[in-house]
Amino acid sequence: MNKESLAASGYDFGSPAIGRSPVSLEELALLEKTVAMTAQDEHWLKQAGARLADQTDAVVGAWREVIAAHPHLARYYGSCEGVADAAYKARVGERFKQWILDVCLRPRDATWLDYQHEIGLRHTHLRKNQVDRAAALPHIPLRYLIAFTAVINERIRPFLAKDATPEESAALHAAWCKAVLLQLALWSRPYVAESEW
Amino acid sequence: MNKESLAASGYDFGSPAIGRSPVSLEELALLEKTVAMTAQDEHWLKQAGARLADQTDAVVGAWREVIAAHPHLARYYGSCEGVADAAYKARVGERFKQWILDVCLRPRDATWLDYQHEIGLRHTHLRKNQVDRAAALPHIPLRYLIAFTAVINERIRPFLAKDATPEESAALHAAWCKAVLLQLALWSRPYVAESEW
Repeated sequence: MNKESLAASGYDFGSPAIGRSPVSLEELALLEKTVAMTAQDEHWLKQAGARLADQTDAVVGAWREVIAAHPHLARYYGSCEGVADAAYKARVGERFKQWILDVCLRPRDATWLDYQHEIGLRHTHLRKNQVDRAAALPHIPLRYLIAFTAVINERIRPFLAKDATPEESAALHAAWCKAVLLQLALWSRPYVAESEW
Repeated sequence: MNKESLAASGYDFGSPAIGRSPVSLEELALLEKTVAMTAQDEHWLKQAGARLADQTDAVVGAWREVIAAHPHLARYYGSCEGVADAAYKARVGERFKQWILDVCLRPRDATWLDYQHEIGLRHTHLRKNQVDRAAALPHIPLRYLIAFTAVINERIRPFLAKDATPEESAALHAAWCKAVLLQLALWSRPYVAESEW
């Protein structure tokens, strides 16, 4: 997908239209330490990005297979009445694919931090649906955001493992999981009072 | 560790002294679906429990190595003044070891759900330190609880992999990670308004 159509899908990384993250770079550094992100992990994340580049369609498909199998998850793509919003789902899908590469390849700086905050907000009633002008359910509960991370991390395993040795597979998967848990921590920010977060 | 000394360490699984979980068994079933827990995973979790039974000391040691290396994490074992509370840390350590086996071997029923809720509360200012009468910092921020899950899931990998084939290792690790993310979702409950959770 080229830059223009990605932008059309509401992918606003680096856009002046999105707000600033309330999280400082110092706090981000502490979170990187908390997931035990190392220079080796950064190396393996880049490798993962190269490996996943032509597999993002299939990875998102594998994740969405789980969502589609469970009405209590699939409903967040649709309205209160259970009517699926295909256009919304398609736009989110494009961003989902781009996110895979961003997890692996984007440097974690202030711009990245701002976009993580935006992604976090877009799961909640504060910002969900807005960029897509969708009428889908307005809030993804935190418990499903957390629990579904298990699927995100598990279902990507074979895509990372393709043509890799068992050792490489484990290193690629470890780096991926750390990066995702780090983001999940950031995405939880809008759900929680500042003093609890 | 025998039953009496575990009880002495504040391990209150099934105790009438702890409260009821606000989460229903129906909601638990949805969370199990959200992490994509399967009958195969249940099988591998039991296997993991057998494999980890005589390694819990070492696993907790591997986790705590990361905590000890980072003052922003180690401080939750100590006071506002940074004085470590060795007795508290020892008691938490015994529960931490038992938790490994509970993740793998406990059936997920109402009693289990109540204790997950208790564990969740014990990370927060609502219940942290109380059972241990400790004067340590009173609240673990949600962001560190989430982010440290990456360490929990990564550092246990070699212990699960001992004498296992690469396929067995991956299956054991997948089941473990799903079980932990499911618990993390439950532990997040006291941090969040009910309508957002």
